[in-house]
Amino acid sequence: MSAALPQVFPHAGLPARVTVYEVGARDGLQNEKATVPTAVKAQFIDRLAEAGATVVEATSFVHPKWVPQLADAEDLFTGLRRRDGVRYPVLVPNPRGYERALACGAREIAVFASATETFARRNLNTSVEGALAEIEAVVARARAAGLWVRGYVSMCFGDPWQGPVDPAAVAAVVERLLSAGCQEISLGDTIGTATPGHVRALIDTLGSRGVDPARLAVHFHDTYGQALANTLAALLAGITTVDASAGGLGGCPFAKSATGNLATEDLVWMLDGLGVYTGIDLPALVETSRWMAGHLGRPAPSRAVQALTKD
Amino acid sequence: MSAALPQVFPHAGLPARVTVYEVGARDGLQNEKATVPTAVKAQFIDRLAEAGATVVEATSFVHPKWVPQLADAEDLFTGLRRRDGVRYPVLVPNPRGYERALACGAREIAVFASATETFARRNLNTSVEGALAEIEAVVARARAAGLWVRGYVSMCFGDPWQGPVDPAAVAAVVERLLSAGCQEISLGDTIGTATPGHVRALIDTLGSRGVDPARLAVHFHDTYGQALANTLAALLAGITTVDASAGGLGGCPFAKSATGNLATEDLVWMLDGLGVYTGIDLPALVETSRWMAGHLGRPAPSRAVQALTKD
Repeated sequence: MSAALPQVFPHAGLPARVTVYEVGARDGLQNEKATVPTAVKAQFIDRLAEAGATVVEATSFVHPKWVPQLADAEDLFTGLRRRDGVRYPVLVPNPRGYERALACGAREIAVFASATETFARRNLNTSVEGALAEIEAVVARARAAGLWVRGYVSMCFGDPWQGPVDPAAVAAVVERLLSAGCQEISLGDTIGTATPGHVRALIDTLGSRGVDPARLAVHFHDTYGQALANTLAALLAGITTVDASAGGLGGCPFAKSATGNLATEDLVWMLDGLGVYTGIDLPALVETSRWMAGHLGRPAPSRAVQALTKD
Repeated sequence: MSAALPQVFPHAGLPARVTVYEVGARDGLQNEKATVPTAVKAQFIDRLAEAGATVVEATSFVHPKWVPQLADAEDLFTGLRRRDGVRYPVLVPNPRGYERALACGAREIAVFASATETFARRNLNTSVEGALAEIEAVVARARAAGLWVRGYVSMCFGDPWQGPVDPAAVAAVVERLLSAGCQEISLGDTIGTATPGHVRALIDTLGSRGVDPARLAVHFHDTYGQALANTLAALLAGITTVDASAGGLGGCPFAKSATGNLATEDLVWMLDGLGVYTGIDLPALVETSRWMAGHLGRPAPSRAVQALTKD
């Protein structure tokens, strides 16, 4: 067998390089049933960085009552080995989470908004506006303290309760987050229903309102098998930052049918084949996901990991 | 939950309609371990047609020694209910298979070539040239008898033994098949290693040599998770016929790591979302794949089927 790496054939209209924003340690592990020892998480994050990931979201300073898998956020984050050139953002779901992250020395944070009222009410226990007001206060403090801030927007392409989501409504939330001071916005297809034209429409809508695609990231779930096709559409629309989860770990515990983030390996296989630089060493990443799968007691959902494991 | 169908957002550069060439009953079932009763296969095919599939590859007239799962080809094919407007091609791997198909009244057949010497030797027990010579004889007889003929080309994007495959070598085989009289050529990524630029490069190479994309189909396996992204690239390159397998059944018993055809449901989800007409009713198709999965004793690999089953 000699199919360990894809042949390289560029495609018109794509960027020369893509930043992979690795969410496996946070979005992945928070949705796995097993609780992983802190030392294993730390090693997972360090192996991801060693494999070439330049942004590794490390954990979430969420209340342990909601996500017990990440109750060790302080211990994990303060004990992390920091590699040069690698960023380790953490999710802060509320002002208390921000205080905890700041106390641990976090320099990059991510906040979390909803594009839809139903998800805001059910997941955040507030309204879209209520969430934004709280976020604006956190972002103002974070920026004043010199932190880098990403804003996640959930349910940008569909909502499990209300159904369709209007790109204009998403754009309004994105603009609020940018005005608040977020340096990057991640557009989340939390339930995985998006298709490539929808992705293009949202990015173009944002572009027509003056939002530079360089400030946007995409965050796809593979619930309906669309994640990589949507990523291709996003790259063709000018996006250069893509969220992905090593091994395809994760999902969303609050949204029914939200299974599986885009697997980093499937993404890197595509980007390697397209000649788009990521800096990630695919075999090292696969080995890391296989090792993590051993700790989780189940195979990695990533198809590329499965295929490369058979060889 | 109201996410049963995607929102519709067209994407520039795509066709208004796509013909889904359904291979689940042949390429799918021939690679499933379980042998399915003939009556169940017949019902599967009829349910696929009832769900809106207009081309349903029914079986293969291969020697039962090689594919015992399809040893009932005669009984199945002669007993099939034929719906108006639906084509039921059958695979004929050699002259003996052609005789058997013709004796059963087949009016559409598919022949099978390899783009690589190693696959020709290991799978077909001949050379690329030897396979083509035999195919030319079969196609000549079939066309003289008024049959419609498709030519499959395996290993168009990678070969498990030799590795890289040159698009020019694939083009040479495609041209031979077209010259022989094949009306349609299916470009097979048998081991699933292709990425979107490679797909574009092959279609463009063929176009530069005068091959109309309207005469081409693409046949992707999801081994590395690339199948749907590759399909999007193929559609953007002018392809309008896509092979897919209901539920994602199948693989290739001769090629290591060749797991899973592109799932028809994942494809139809994307095309429905893009507003590209297929004629296929997604809920009916999902129901058919769930029913078939029950007979096979394992869940359908299709992510869309899994997501829609949870609802």
